[in-house]
Amino acid sequence: MTRVRVDLNISLDGFATTTDQTPNNPFGDDWGRLTADYVATRTFRERVLHMADGSGTTGVDDRYAARYFEDLGAEIMGAAMFGLHLHGDDPGWRGWWGEEPPFRVPVLVLTHAPRPPIHFENGTRFEFLSATPRDALARAKELASGGDVRIGGGPTTVRAFLREGLVDSLHVAMVPILLGRGEWLWQGLRGLEAGYRVESETAPSGVTHLTFEREAAS
Amino acid sequence: MTRVRVDLNISLDGFATTTDQTPNNPFGDDWGRLTADYVATRTFRERVLHMADGSGTTGVDDRYAARYFEDLGAEIMGAAMFGLHLHGDDPGWRGWWGEEPPFRVPVLVLTHAPRPPIHFENGTRFEFLSATPRDALARAKELASGGDVRIGGGPTTVRAFLREGLVDSLHVAMVPILLGRGEWLWQGLRGLEAGYRVESETAPSGVTHLTFEREAAS
Repeated sequence: MTRVRVDLNISLDGFATTTDQTPNNPFGDDWGRLTADYVATRTFRERVLHMADGSGTTGVDDRYAARYFEDLGAEIMGAAMFGLHLHGDDPGWRGWWGEEPPFRVPVLVLTHAPRPPIHFENGTRFEFLSATPRDALARAKELASGGDVRIGGGPTTVRAFLREGLVDSLHVAMVPILLGRGEWLWQGLRGLEAGYRVESETAPSGVTHLTFEREAAS
Repeated sequence: MTRVRVDLNISLDGFATTTDQTPNNPFGDDWGRLTADYVATRTFRERVLHMADGSGTTGVDDRYAARYFEDLGAEIMGAAMFGLHLHGDDPGWRGWWGEEPPFRVPVLVLTHAPRPPIHFENGTRFEFLSATPRDALARAKELASGGDVRIGGGPTTVRAFLREGLVDSLHVAMVPILLGRGEWLWQGLRGLEAGYRVESETAPSGVTHLTFEREAAS
């Protein structure tokens, strides 16, 4: 059965984006600290950086990183995550990920200004649409061929799906740093835990992995 | 050496107080959920509820609960935690804890309207003063006889000491519920982790125990 999944890295104080980007440091130092333990995993190095040298960590963090890519049939992301807020004026913009985007499945990009789809040889296919979360999810399930649908981000997009009760599985990797600014994941999510089984696991890196799994309907 | 310690229960979204109190439910349902795993420990039942029947949980949560009372020489709390915001007009108010307050050490209550000290037979002694965090801490260390000083709460008082870099050891028991309202512990604490060794441990109850321990001065 198709499950709708979310994976995010957040700070201890709940921020999923950072604000210290500069032209010379386009991701920012905070982003590096927020994602350092994920980026260090063998899975990330293989799957995103295309380093097939066996380097990278293989413990708890890597187990969650591997799950991130398992059984994925389609992804949904917001316009900002694809880069349209910065590059929307460029009709040739193909996303941040070069010619081998790590998705390898259809990706729906939610935007009020849809553009033609973009195909990559590795199976990644960006399709742009203006739709409600519920309608976007229906389309993603068609594309997922029985695989799971991941709501990739950013946090605003994730929250929209969480608030409508559309997410079956939420994994947050909580990094023990306090950012104090950025996009706060938990805004407007009081009581989210109802209907989920919540578990947590600590990694030697200091990251706490929290998972919210939808309980089976009674 | 005297250490300055903080222990708090917070929700996953960082709230350390709750807002659903009513006259008929003076602590509120949310408070019960925030403290349930702590209240269930053997230590809490013995030390606060005076139940010496050996009941209560004895696992990870109880280990942290026991530490809460270890080596304590004095405590500092805000006026609200003592009850002065509600009962300040009553010169006979002796706090929430009955005739056996669980502190058993001198307690400094920070208030702009100091009142005479109150003594209890079990060693608890409330002393009221109007002072900066730094000055209050100096007085508490005098009273602590070489034991530790705990900043007991509420969160506003705790934050004032954290922001001034006065806390050596912070323990937060993070409960996997989203309250969405109340006093947000993390306000204005960006970068708090600098200078601390941060560790986390997960309890079977679902609570994540995070500890910030001051690294030894180099």
